[in-house]
Amino acid sequence: MITWENLDKLKAFQELKAVKAVRLQEVMSGDNGAARVRNYTVPMAEGLSYNYAAKAVDDDILKVLVRLAEEAQLHEKFEDLYNGAVINTGEKRLVLHHLTRGQLGEEVIADGVNKRAFYVKQQERIADFANKVHNGEISNAAGEKFTTVVQIGIGGSDLGPRAMYLALENWARTKGLLKMDARFISNVDPDDAAAVLRSIDVAHSLFILVSKSGTTLETLTNQTFVMNALKAQGLDPAKHMIAVTSETSPIATSDEYLAAFYMDDYIGGRYSSTSAVGGAVLSLAFGPEVFAEFLEGAAAEDQTAKEQDPLKNPAMLDALIGVYERNVLGYESTAILPYSQALNRFPAHLQQLDMESNGKSVNRFGEPVDYPTGPVIFGEPGTNGQHSFYQLLHQGKNIVPLQFVGFRQNQIGMDDTIQGSTSQQKLCANVAAQIVAFALGKHDENRNKNFEGGRPSSIIIGDQVNPRTLGALLAHFENKVMFQGFVWNVNSFDQEGVQLGKVLAKRVLAHETDGALKVYSDLFNI
Amino acid sequence: MITWENLDKLKAFQELKAVKAVRLQEVMSGDNGAARVRNYTVPMAEGLSYNYAAKAVDDDILKVLVRLAEEAQLHEKFEDLYNGAVINTGEKRLVLHHLTRGQLGEEVIADGVNKRAFYVKQQERIADFANKVHNGEISNAAGEKFTTVVQIGIGGSDLGPRAMYLALENWARTKGLLKMDARFISNVDPDDAAAVLRSIDVAHSLFILVSKSGTTLETLTNQTFVMNALKAQGLDPAKHMIAVTSETSPIATSDEYLAAFYMDDYIGGRYSSTSAVGGAVLSLAFGPEVFAEFLEGAAAEDQTAKEQDPLKNPAMLDALIGVYERNVLGYESTAILPYSQALNRFPAHLQQLDMESNGKSVNRFGEPVDYPTGPVIFGEPGTNGQHSFYQLLHQGKNIVPLQFVGFRQNQIGMDDTIQGSTSQQKLCANVAAQIVAFALGKHDENRNKNFEGGRPSSIIIGDQVNPRTLGALLAHFENKVMFQGFVWNVNSFDQEGVQLGKVLAKRVLAHETDGALKVYSDLFNI
Repeated sequence: MITWENLDKLKAFQELKAVKAVRLQEVMSGDNGAARVRNYTVPMAEGLSYNYAAKAVDDDILKVLVRLAEEAQLHEKFEDLYNGAVINTGEKRLVLHHLTRGQLGEEVIADGVNKRAFYVKQQERIADFANKVHNGEISNAAGEKFTTVVQIGIGGSDLGPRAMYLALENWARTKGLLKMDARFISNVDPDDAAAVLRSIDVAHSLFILVSKSGTTLETLTNQTFVMNALKAQGLDPAKHMIAVTSETSPIATSDEYLAAFYMDDYIGGRYSSTSAVGGAVLSLAFGPEVFAEFLEGAAAEDQTAKEQDPLKNPAMLDALIGVYERNVLGYESTAILPYSQALNRFPAHLQQLDMESNGKSVNRFGEPVDYPTGPVIFGEPGTNGQHSFYQLLHQGKNIVPLQFVGFRQNQIGMDDTIQGSTSQQKLCANVAAQIVAFALGKHDENRNKNFEGGRPSSIIIGDQVNPRTLGALLAHFENKVMFQGFVWNVNSFDQEGVQLGKVLAKRVLAHETDGALKVYSDLFNI
Repeated sequence: MITWENLDKLKAFQELKAVKAVRLQEVMSGDNGAARVRNYTVPMAEGLSYNYAAKAVDDDILKVLVRLAEEAQLHEKFEDLYNGAVINTGEKRLVLHHLTRGQLGEEVIADGVNKRAFYVKQQERIADFANKVHNGEISNAAGEKFTTVVQIGIGGSDLGPRAMYLALENWARTKGLLKMDARFISNVDPDDAAAVLRSIDVAHSLFILVSKSGTTLETLTNQTFVMNALKAQGLDPAKHMIAVTSETSPIATSDEYLAAFYMDDYIGGRYSSTSAVGGAVLSLAFGPEVFAEFLEGAAAEDQTAKEQDPLKNPAMLDALIGVYERNVLGYESTAILPYSQALNRFPAHLQQLDMESNGKSVNRFGEPVDYPTGPVIFGEPGTNGQHSFYQLLHQGKNIVPLQFVGFRQNQIGMDDTIQGSTSQQKLCANVAAQIVAFALGKHDENRNKNFEGGRPSSIIIGDQVNPRTLGALLAHFENKVMFQGFVWNVNSFDQEGVQLGKVLAKRVLAHETDGALKVYSDLFNI
């Protein structure tokens, strides 16, 4: 029997606040530190591992975190979720993104269909379509192959698929697997669409309109913008455009598209990279086999999230440590620091995933909660960040927990030995050095050069960013955020906070404003 | 007589803590709200204005902030700075980036030369060089024109110039002023350089090595990486490479470069966009006239920072309100939200500028301070962010102060009326709507749909992102960060926090590690 309780009602949380804090400067030094790095690690899927040696936890804290996981019924709640319970209480919806990549539990029937079969069917339809585009069966009006694919979408229809494309672009190019270049149009700023249109060969471009509801202002506007540009070049938009939407949206049955692929209300935008939303653009760019591998990596990682023992469940453990940092240690933000240029925009995706899921002030029953929930998330790839905001991370007044990601190999394989080491070795040496610098600090009589240390970090280590590891990495963070939502007792799957701005913007455009809103509108000459 | 006191020693700061807080939900509603939007605004240079109506201040708080500015001697300290005092106490250096774009006060003589003349001379040398590249006088070995310029630098040699290039790229292309495409190599991840090299025509590319010291690991590594790639194509690197460095660096006199342009120790990396560091790449990309306009915009904005009355000094006022939010209201982070796709990477630059300058725990004398200093800075362009992390901003447990930037016109000028409004109107309507939504919120019986409001924001409004407004915008934030550093009594111009990581990384590469660092190194097979 599952009960949904606020975090501050849980006995284990009260215990957690009483456990002695860990001084990283002590536990991470010497042989004990070495032993921690060896022991405080959990295998993930696809050869990845989650190492939390440099997090401010010890066996005593971990024991209480395990009890917290049990008391909060994290395992059971996840089970409920993947078996088709209405976990998204606000919108009264199932939460089924895991089914886009595998069957974790029982068959889920909704809207009269087996949902796993539904998602597989969409994947197959996309694969078939992509293959036809690649072999020229589906071509432009002149019978020529499409060379570029352009995703038109915003938020979850943009950040995730874009981050995934960028993560695999060089990998695919190096392996000769890049079938089409991909571009993305998201912002309602007309310069976004105009710049993309200017940079591509429109006659050989295929556009994907991605909107679950078929009503997103930015996306519909950009679609019309693109259609007008196509017409201006004498092209028929219907021959250049496909749609990813829900079966019930007005777009689904429109004849303005070459084809339409479906997602549904059980997949939140920020969880849609493994659905048709990511599937169409990634299959067109890299081929359906690469997309299938990406899904397999995610599915494999989902399996690790089923592990009952939190100490063997990387996403659950990551979530619990994050809760400890947020609700006991009081840290307000978390930095995501991938040491991989391929993961350039991965932090921007996680920023949405995390902040939109858990940036809530009420619990699943709509009652205010009295404790901090989701943190501010930000990040840039290393080593770039080291020469930028790391100053504050090392010596600022507030402690920011860090989440590193690093890989032993690069993607392109072009590397030189310079001053005795390769660039890849320098990259890895830097992430290792940073973890230790943040944890241990370094005493200096000159306080300006003093490093206090005690700044916690974890690292996910893998061999290389490729479709499988990327899928696993994505699933890890999705599941981490989900488990944290369970602990905080919030609904991680709605986003009511985005509504008010939409309503007011419409009012501005309809000139139905007064007070401050009217004056701001005047300032912009609207 | 200037005295440097900690913030908590200032009488006005104690008063500030005692002033009644403002409820934005009240003051921003109705006619009072409209009046605030009209009145709480300060003109900036180049037609920009700083509007702080939606900040949680009122006349009472502003009065104390004015006293705080006086007591902290912000005006006098800025005067000292631009007249050549040793403001960077840690490194015992002058702080002269303002001189790269104008003469704000007395002539500054350092190292035996007039520094304004020195920076002007570098600008002129760069202009001459760029003109020769553009007219073909300086060409590749085959006598063909260079078409692409590639900046090799990291941190301040990358983020600022890159953000400025991206901000003006479409503006320049639209005006027919884009002389050369620019690319940037920064990360020591070899995939960064390899991907850029793969995407350009190397034989027609000119590379700029940017390193003040001539010793930055990433930059020198990437330089060698590029040189090897040039040699592999049978090209002479010395015919494809220029340097921006200090006159005393080993690079300055090397014959490995076509030319070398100089900066000096008085320009911090994050303040170097208006020096030769930004000058070379921007002059080559857009022509020296465009770069000159950018400098003129910055110089004009610097003049506004000289205004003695804080209520007429946009950067000082912005700084003071930020201090109030950080040190009285207790907010830990600030989001930068430009409603302009052109300012895509502007937040990443400000993240460095702010966090590296003021992310400090000791005052200028190396004594620990007992109050919060620089906040965490993050941001993405709107409207994209609205569909991402705004959920937390609207309904999360922690309040995040917001800094909007918006423009009446786009850059490319391609726009369509769709559903009764242009994309540009939709963009502007959205930023106006967001400010009001954040400030006022909206009551709903369903707490899940309830918006508490009371979330403070300011906005900088202008006509268009162009070289002049961009220069002004950049200078505004540089000066804001400087004034905040004065208030917090920290040295905003050193960055000792980046050193420890460098030392440890070298140790890893030399295999001189033990304890945790050795085990991490082993995990990466270094």
